[in-house]
Formats: sequence, C-alpha cells, structure tokens
Amino acid sequence: MGLIEKIKAGEIPEEVVIVAEKEQMEVDELLEKVISGVAVIPKNKDHCISPVGVGAGLRIKVNANLGTAEDYADLDEELKKLSVAIKAGADAVMDLSTGGNLNRTRKAILEESTVPVGTVPIYQAAIESKEKYGNIVQMTADDIFTAIEQQAMDGVDFITVHCGVNLKALEALESSRRVTNVVSRGGAFLLGWMLHNQKENPLYAQFDRLLDIAREHDLTLSLGDGMRPGCLADASDSAQFQELITLGELVEAARSQDVQVMVEGPGHVPFDQIEANVRMEKSICKGAPFYVLGPLVTDVAPGYDHISCAIGATYAGVSGADFICYVTPREHLGLPTAEDVRDGVIAARIAAHAADVVKGIPGAKEWDLEMAKARRELDWDRQIVLAIDSEKAEKAYKERKKKEEDVCTMCGEFCALKLVSEYLRSSDTGTC
Amino acid sequence: MGLIEKIKAGEIPEEVVIVAEKEQMEVDELLEKVISGVAVIPKNKDHCISPVGVGAGLRIKVNANLGTAEDYADLDEELKKLSVAIKAGADAVMDLSTGGNLNRTRKAILEESTVPVGTVPIYQAAIESKEKYGNIVQMTADDIFTAIEQQAMDGVDFITVHCGVNLKALEALESSRRVTNVVSRGGAFLLGWMLHNQKENPLYAQFDRLLDIAREHDLTLSLGDGMRPGCLADASDSAQFQELITLGELVEAARSQDVQVMVEGPGHVPFDQIEANVRMEKSICKGAPFYVLGPLVTDVAPGYDHISCAIGATYAGVSGADFICYVTPREHLGLPTAEDVRDGVIAARIAAHAADVVKGIPGAKEWDLEMAKARRELDWDRQIVLAIDSEKAEKAYKERKKKEEDVCTMCGEFCALKLVSEYLRSSDTGTC
Repeated sequence: MGLIEKIKAGEIPEEVVIVAEKEQMEVDELLEKVISGVAVIPKNKDHCISPVGVGAGLRIKVNANLGTAEDYADLDEELKKLSVAIKAGADAVMDLSTGGNLNRTRKAILEESTVPVGTVPIYQAAIESKEKYGNIVQMTADDIFTAIEQQAMDGVDFITVHCGVNLKALEALESSRRVTNVVSRGGAFLLGWMLHNQKENPLYAQFDRLLDIAREHDLTLSLGDGMRPGCLADASDSAQFQELITLGELVEAARSQDVQVMVEGPGHVPFDQIEANVRMEKSICKGAPFYVLGPLVTDVAPGYDHISCAIGATYAGVSGADFICYVTPREHLGLPTAEDVRDGVIAARIAAHAADVVKGIPGAKEWDLEMAKARRELDWDRQIVLAIDSEKAEKAYKERKKKEEDVCTMCGEFCALKLVSEYLRSSDTGTC
Repeated sequence: MGLIEKIKAGEIPEEVVIVAEKEQMEVDELLEKVISGVAVIPKNKDHCISPVGVGAGLRIKVNANLGTAEDYADLDEELKKLSVAIKAGADAVMDLSTGGNLNRTRKAILEESTVPVGTVPIYQAAIESKEKYGNIVQMTADDIFTAIEQQAMDGVDFITVHCGVNLKALEALESSRRVTNVVSRGGAFLLGWMLHNQKENPLYAQFDRLLDIAREHDLTLSLGDGMRPGCLADASDSAQFQELITLGELVEAARSQDVQVMVEGPGHVPFDQIEANVRMEKSICKGAPFYVLGPLVTDVAPGYDHISCAIGATYAGVSGADFICYVTPREHLGLPTAEDVRDGVIAARIAAHAADVVKGIPGAKEWDLEMAKARRELDWDRQIVLAIDSEKAEKAYKERKKKEEDVCTMCGEFCALKLVSEYLRSSDTGTC
C-alpha cells in the first residue's frame, strides 16, 4: 500500500510522524494535509531516506538540480555536487543527467543521497531512443513508460512528467507568438515527438498507466511545466495557462487514484505577475503543492541568476509556493560546478527562509532573533554559528584583519552597536 | 541661485535637460517633478559630473558606499573601489570614510568620480571631536556645521544628515524595547551626544542653518534614518515611525527654502512589511524620493547580504522606492573589498532593473526582450554583450568548455531552444 492508501486504511505512517515532528506540527494536521493533497511526502517505498514534506503550512523546501551532460559526464563530480548541495542545506535533489551512463549515475545518486531524489525520465527515454533509432521522434510510448518504471524500481522519490504538453497546449502555443517558444528540455522532446508523429503526448493520453506505476512504487508525480516562459516577454500567456488547466485536471485524476502529486511552475516572470501565478496554480490545481523554478525576475543577469531567482522565489514563497528549485549563477551559461551548486542552494534558502518568516513557520523568526541578539552582544563566534553558511561567513569575517577584537573592520571603533551600549551604560536616562 | 530657484525664476537648467534626455522624459515633466520635490538632481554647484535624477517615474538608481575605516585607510584601495563601482554601473557613490586623512580621501573621490558623491559629515565632526577633545560628546554644534560647510565647499553633491534623531525619537526608542537599539553610526554619535548633554540634536534644532548651507552650495539633503531597524524584530516600530514623522516635517521645511531633499529608509524589514514602509514614507514625506538601504529581508545571511538586499530592494522599488543603497556580501562582517563592491552593485542593479521592468521605465523591458531574442538565436556573443555584467557572463560561459559551438554545456545537444527550432523547421504544422 502507498502512503495515501495507508492513511485511508486508518494507519499513521511513520513518514507522517517524522515529518510532523520536523515541522513542529500535530500529526493529525499533517495527515489531513497529505490526504487532501495540499502537502506531499515524496518518498519511494524502496528508498531509504529521512522523509521530507512539501506543501501548505510547511517550511518551504529547496531543490538542487544535479546531473551529467554531454560534455561533463563525470560521476565523481556529480557526487561531489550532491554532497555540496546537501551540506548547503538542500532539502531534495534532482538527477537531470543526460551524459554518460545514466543508470549508473542515477543509482549512485540514489545510494548516496540522504534527501529525496527526483528525476525526469523522459530524458532517458529520449536519449535511449536516439541511440536505438537514431532520433527522438521514433520513441514509442512503451519506451517512455519503460524508463519511468525502471527509475521507479531504482527508488526515485519523485519524477517530473510533462503531461500537460498536450495538443491543446500546442495549439495555444501556436497562437501565443512567443519569443523563446519552449525552453523546457522535456517539453521540447515531447513537442518534437508530437509534431512529427501528429499524435497526443503519451504521458497525457495514457495518464492512468503513469498512475499505476506511481501507486505501485509510492512515487510522487511532479507535473512539469513544459510551457513555462523562457523570458519575461512570454510570461503568463495562453500556452502557459492552457497547460495549467490540464495540470489541474490531472491533479484531480491523480488524487482519485491515491497518487501524490505536485505541480511545477515558471520560469521567467516579471515581479508583479508572480503572486497571480501562484494564486492561479493554487486555485486551478486545488491547492496542490507548487514547485517553482525561481521565478527569475529578469532575463539580463546571466552569471547572477541565483539572485534573480532568489528575488522571485521569495515573493512566490510569500504568495504560497511550497518548493523552490534553485537556479545557479551558471544558469543560461553552462553546467554548474560544485561552487555554483553551493551558491545556488544558499540563495534559494535565503528566499525560502525570508518567506518562512512571513508565513510564521515555527523557528523561522526565532533564527533571525538569535542572530540579532548575537550582533547586539558583538558575539562573533555565535554569529558565525548562526549564519546560513557558517564557513563563508567565517572566511569573510577573518580575511579582513583588524586591530580591535570585539568589532568588525567595517566600522572599527565607531561600531554603532558598541557605541550605543557604552552610551546607554554611562547615561543617567537608563534603558532605551 | 540653486536649481530650484533657477526653475522658479523661469530658467530651464542644463541639469534638467540632461537628466530628461537620459530618462527619455519631456523636460516639462521633469521640471514639474523637481520643483514639486518628487524628484531630485543631487549635484553641487561646484562639482563637475553628469547629473543624475532620483525620484518618481525615473529609473531606479543604485548607490555604492565606499570609504576607509580605522583598519583600512588606504586611499588607493578606495579609488580602486570607486572605479569598480562605476564600471559595474553605480549611479552614485558615498564616501563614508572614518580612517586616515578624511579630507584628502574625500577630495580624491570627488575629483575622480564621474557620478554624484554623497557623504555623512557627522562622521568627520565626531572623529575630529575625538581628536580635539578626546571624546565625541564634547563636540559642539559649530563643529558639526563646520564639517558640513567644509564638505559642501569641497563639492559634495548630497549629504546624509540624521536630523530626525531628536528627543521625541529618543523617547520612542525607550519605549520600543529594541533588540539592537540603534545601528546607524551617525545616529549613534548623535544619540550619545544627546544622552550625555541632555540637549536636542543640533541638526534638528538648527535645521535652518543646515538649509542655508545647502542652498548656498546646491547641496541635496538626504534625511538619514538613525532609527532604522537593525534586525527584523525591530522593524516598523514606534521609534522608526516617530523619526519618519519628523522627517516629513523637515521635508516641507526644506522645500519651502528651495532645498532639494530625499529621505532614507530601512534597514532590516520582513518582506511583508516592505510595501507599507515605502507607502508610509511617500505619504508622510509628501512624495520625497525614498533612498532605501536594502531592505534586508533576513538577518541570518552574513556573507550573502547582497542577496538579502536585492530581494528587499526589488519589492521596495516596485512599491515606489527610488534609490537603492547597495549592500555588499561583506556587510556585518567587515569592510568590503573591491570584489565585494562589484557584487554589491550588480545585485542592487538587478533589483533596480527588475523593478524598472514593472514600473514601465523606458528601455527596461526592451533590454530583457533583446536578451530573449539573443537566447532564441543562440547568439552567445550578443548574450554576453547584453549581460548586466558581460565580463562575468563571458568568464562563466567560457570556463566550462564544450564540444558543440552553438549551445552551452548545460544541455549540450539537448538544448530545448535548438531542438524546438529544428522541430519547427522540419514540421508541416508550420509556425508556433
């Protein structure tokens, strides 16, 4: 039995108990969220990890994308990135490998990861189709479902499936006159296949087949946004919302079959359209957890897209997004290095935390308060311990040497905190 | 005659013509904004720079703080930072020096800067008081005004003056029970002085004297927020708003004397309080340009505070803030290096631009559109030219070597943009 089936049968699954404890939430409240589908716990029945919850009222989670590519197919580098991502605080990772031995890479990441692992099985299906037939368009529906089943058996916890890239979305895309058409890799594979074969997307046409596999392995579906905008100019258009409408229908179909499901979102979105995007997803997809890629609030900052992402992700999080897919500084420029992965995870965590503070997530505000107190006391050791990246904070603090021990080199003896505490001590007016 | 007096006398000052052209705005519209005080052009009558406008409907500007400190009093390093800041696109700089020869440093920065230069004269007054009397509290009102006059004569374009740190604000501070009291250096100097001398802040008590100096040199006043919150827990409290009320009164007093004025704002503010902070300033200060320090949306990210700043600054900009003071990654940890300065300027520019897109500033959206088109065409040279930091984008692109020339190493041959354009070319269904 899968997680939902167990709950429906009156069980209190261990995963729910563990996640409730992590979230400082009553077990009953979390059970209600999971069974109604506004929260998910992505965990394959055969994958040994500490479960993580994603959804309404829970701490916002951060995902780090890993994976080889044609020009960088070094498993060791990917495992290094995995360890860097987890150390930096990623709550989940996705293996998006497209280079080298895909099965070996995925199994190694599943083996070493302590957090949920997601994949995009259409990549493997497309790549193997190219090897087998010389092209992607001859890929069969069976090829796609075989790849999904194989990955589910390996223990993958959640998969992105671009079920909403259907003929209706394609029609909307045609009338949308986009600047960058489709920027989703999975979306592009399926779009190419559909255009060539003049057939409906198998992931949509045979959605029940997908649900059967998911239920069998307790695999969470993440309904991909193949029509996500690839630039500000394409944001919030009919192609994007046509796909979202389909995803809303599929959410209900998945729930009716006791399959956990979340929905993926944009992409590149002007700041003032972010809240509407989140609210539309929550409304159309009946509160399904929203997994956003940023969104990036500008197209012009390659080299700094982790910052464009953090800006959009904070607002998305405050508006109700539940899961942030990080973007690294190398987005749009190349495959990230381990350092890029760390920068990407931390930037997304800053966004998630800033939104958690607003949402009133237990412990969020308290963390900031502890830091504020450590600052007031000029307690540098404690500030470094409390920093979101202690290693970097310590390095930045220590590499600018100083004469006075209790202050930093920015203000030196003119540290406002130090001055004020001295003035207040020496003043007759007492406390303030 | 100063800028406002000239306009009132029917002149059309050259500064207004130049700024109007930069902003793609009618001269008459800008004249109206400047004369009503919703926009300012901070330029000392004796400083030779290209004028920059700050205010309603104008492109959001970015300021970079420079300046020596006790442990780093190397003029060459500060001049290097100045050149890095300007190259990265800073619209203004402030010399916040507190170490070494203050007059020499300021004059060198004024001489070399091509953008408006601001200062905080109370630093010099306090430091010289310490040299002269052995402490800050014996500083006289004359000492303060002498420092201001000297800096105005040197050609400083705008000065931060903490006129709102008055006895009323002090009283509000006492009842606010803050975690970090006062974190503004200028605010701390004045607070210490007031507590010790049991007297009103001379910058408030003798505000007319300040206005006389400002009018004589065409110096723009930036009313400092000495009571700005230094942590999320202290945000939006009565001390902060008591000071803001005073600043609103002083804005009207300055305008009545034909002195250009802007208002400084927080600080550390939870994301959901940012819009209210901006709207309150605009309302209480009668539309005076709002110059915000971030705000930072969390306290826990030392080492990454340029990101916490960019998040808050974007929302502040969208809500109506006009001028963003950058925060570097080394904030709270030490005096920034030249690299920190670059990272700080770029992060603040990303925020400013993301907000400009929303505000519909001429050219903003168009920049993103050009980048989107370059991406669609896989035109890497053009993408690098269009990048907000071309040098960094080129480095990040080139350092991950690749086999195929037209794509980057992230997706390689599976580049969605490339695939889709090929599919669309080979497809019978034509355009989409």
